[in-house]
Amino acid sequence: MRVFIAGIDGYLGWPLALYLSANGHQVAGADLLLRREWVAEVGGVSALPIASREERLTAFKEAFGVELDFRVGDLTDYDFVTRCFQDFQPEAVVHLGQMPSAPYSMMDQAHCVWTQQNNVVNNLNILWAIKELAPAAHLIKLGTMGEYGTPALDIPEGFFDVEYRGRKDRLPFPRQAGSWYHQSKVHDSHNTHFASKIWSLKATDIMQGVVFGARIPEMGGDPRLRTRLDFDQCFGTAINRFCCQAVIGHPLTLFGLGRQKRGFLPLTDSMRCLRLALENPPDAGEYRVFNQFENAYSVAELACLVKEAAADIGLPVEIRRYENPRTEMEEHHYNPDRQHLLDLGYEPTRDLKSVIETMLLDLLEHRGRIEAHADALIPDIRWDASRKRSEVIG
Amino acid sequence: MRVFIAGIDGYLGWPLALYLSANGHQVAGADLLLRREWVAEVGGVSALPIASREERLTAFKEAFGVELDFRVGDLTDYDFVTRCFQDFQPEAVVHLGQMPSAPYSMMDQAHCVWTQQNNVVNNLNILWAIKELAPAAHLIKLGTMGEYGTPALDIPEGFFDVEYRGRKDRLPFPRQAGSWYHQSKVHDSHNTHFASKIWSLKATDIMQGVVFGARIPEMGGDPRLRTRLDFDQCFGTAINRFCCQAVIGHPLTLFGLGRQKRGFLPLTDSMRCLRLALENPPDAGEYRVFNQFENAYSVAELACLVKEAAADIGLPVEIRRYENPRTEMEEHHYNPDRQHLLDLGYEPTRDLKSVIETMLLDLLEHRGRIEAHADALIPDIRWDASRKRSEVIG
Repeated sequence: MRVFIAGIDGYLGWPLALYLSANGHQVAGADLLLRREWVAEVGGVSALPIASREERLTAFKEAFGVELDFRVGDLTDYDFVTRCFQDFQPEAVVHLGQMPSAPYSMMDQAHCVWTQQNNVVNNLNILWAIKELAPAAHLIKLGTMGEYGTPALDIPEGFFDVEYRGRKDRLPFPRQAGSWYHQSKVHDSHNTHFASKIWSLKATDIMQGVVFGARIPEMGGDPRLRTRLDFDQCFGTAINRFCCQAVIGHPLTLFGLGRQKRGFLPLTDSMRCLRLALENPPDAGEYRVFNQFENAYSVAELACLVKEAAADIGLPVEIRRYENPRTEMEEHHYNPDRQHLLDLGYEPTRDLKSVIETMLLDLLEHRGRIEAHADALIPDIRWDASRKRSEVIG
Repeated sequence: MRVFIAGIDGYLGWPLALYLSANGHQVAGADLLLRREWVAEVGGVSALPIASREERLTAFKEAFGVELDFRVGDLTDYDFVTRCFQDFQPEAVVHLGQMPSAPYSMMDQAHCVWTQQNNVVNNLNILWAIKELAPAAHLIKLGTMGEYGTPALDIPEGFFDVEYRGRKDRLPFPRQAGSWYHQSKVHDSHNTHFASKIWSLKATDIMQGVVFGARIPEMGGDPRLRTRLDFDQCFGTAINRFCCQAVIGHPLTLFGLGRQKRGFLPLTDSMRCLRLALENPPDAGEYRVFNQFENAYSVAELACLVKEAAADIGLPVEIRRYENPRTEMEEHHYNPDRQHLLDLGYEPTRDLKSVIETMLLDLLEHRGRIEAHADALIPDIRWDASRKRSEVIG
């Protein structure tokens, strides 16, 4: 299948290009390479060194024997998007090309507005380009489990049957997102649902949990094919950040009580799930929502798992609680469904600990990079838009 | 109270400036005067001639004895918004400054993206300016009843108590908006709710029905104080458009079955409701939603009402059904609440027919303006983004 990946240079986009190519799909993509700039802006760096776009293209050709059509351009520029679609004629579009960090969007007015403008406009452009140039193409759009927030109810996959004052309907499940970034993803979900309805587009909206890990088998041993692994307060998500902290002997940083629960999944599972969605497209006019994660864990449970994995390879680790820079519930019900992908054949990775051990071993080789940017490990971006470094509270 | 009106040159903004000034409030506002350009762009004109900004300012000073601080500027420019707030120090902000037309937003990619970008960014800017410069100010943000769409359930005011799989929660009522414009208002509602939560802002989110009429008593007999009245396919809403059609002997244009139900209210009621919200602010951190309309009617019922009112003043009128350019349900349950404003003392105008008769009499004087732009009365903007004039179907 001809698959266009928007955001092909990113944490998920790059391995997806390798994974789909290795599995018989023809891949092209676009990226403005902004992730590299954002991480530098907040004082971070990829813990695992990554290759430049040019090196990635060379390594891709060596690995797969074909040139990768990987264009540098801005998805908020509709002319650029339409040129990509005209040239490549995609049969599927995976949209990963967004600013993905909650703290980055919470920094100040400029970062908030930039995030929403970028994410909303580029998603609209992709919807319009599909409608105008590739109306049979299947859109796989990355949303996030964070769109739902933490209601006191179980979280279904996008829609729920509800009774109210004696009448029944099937309605979109209400979204209560917890950052300007997460709100931008809610807006995109609403826009995508609407586009599917009025234009009969095929759309799969992936509410993804937090991804961790940096390896998929399709990278082989070539370091030029590696994906990035961030640990800074903006782009370093929980398990990845914990692993980076573990290898330099920094305490693992829980925020507040650390009892916040979220869905998590390894990078390999994310790739498999996206492929399952791709190879099992919806009907024309069907907008379906997949909750995509291996399982739900509290952040404290995951810190313990990282501590255990680190102990197995001889790394002593302590866990500390820090002031929570976010406005969020620290104890809450959390029981989201994830049946749709299981029905398509998703077999979740059960041994998370060995994924974490592999990550720790990879990171040990590059601990100097993390040590050199250790300031970026402690958050100072607060949800009230102030900047104040979180102190240890327990 | 010092009230800042964003969108002070518009259909609602201008009469609100008069109404609040006449009722003891100190008003300032901003507008980029774009509504005048949009209406011209789609081939329309205000059926009632309106004064320029300069003439409005002169007439305002004559009527109220004070200068009106009415600035021309772009609310998507944060520096402009912050200068306004620094100078005026608002105690309340009424946000009417948006692109308000569904068909305009549905025209093509450029109009869709422009609408969402403008509406989302300027609402974010107002939220940030309140947070940074006027944190005690009460935001009254105009949303629309169209945000809810037409679910099979009764529509509560913003939130509902729901039970799902044996657990209970109070959740935002799901939004299913029917145009890119309406979607932009949904995005704004989500962003406003979130800002209120994290920054303890006071916010009233008005889900307003379709407003009709062009007179409020505070205009007196001064034509320079009149507000606009549009009849084109983009900015001419149902009753206003029907009245303009009636005075030139054009059939009243129902779309499809004409059984779509919506909430409606006269301009005078909109003014009263906004004042009630203003003078009864919520607590800090409270985000409340008011559904604002006199009553729910089918479009066909309203066409009949206009026909009757026109007959009373000797105008023969016929009603015709046209192809529906929109993708929408033409028959549906519709029973939205509107208790919150009644609880604050809103007494809905009961005699809609006399409001319509007044409007017809005002319009008769200017029928030449409508005749000269009669092409704009029939829609050609379709929800599939094609352009094809609707034909008569019954």
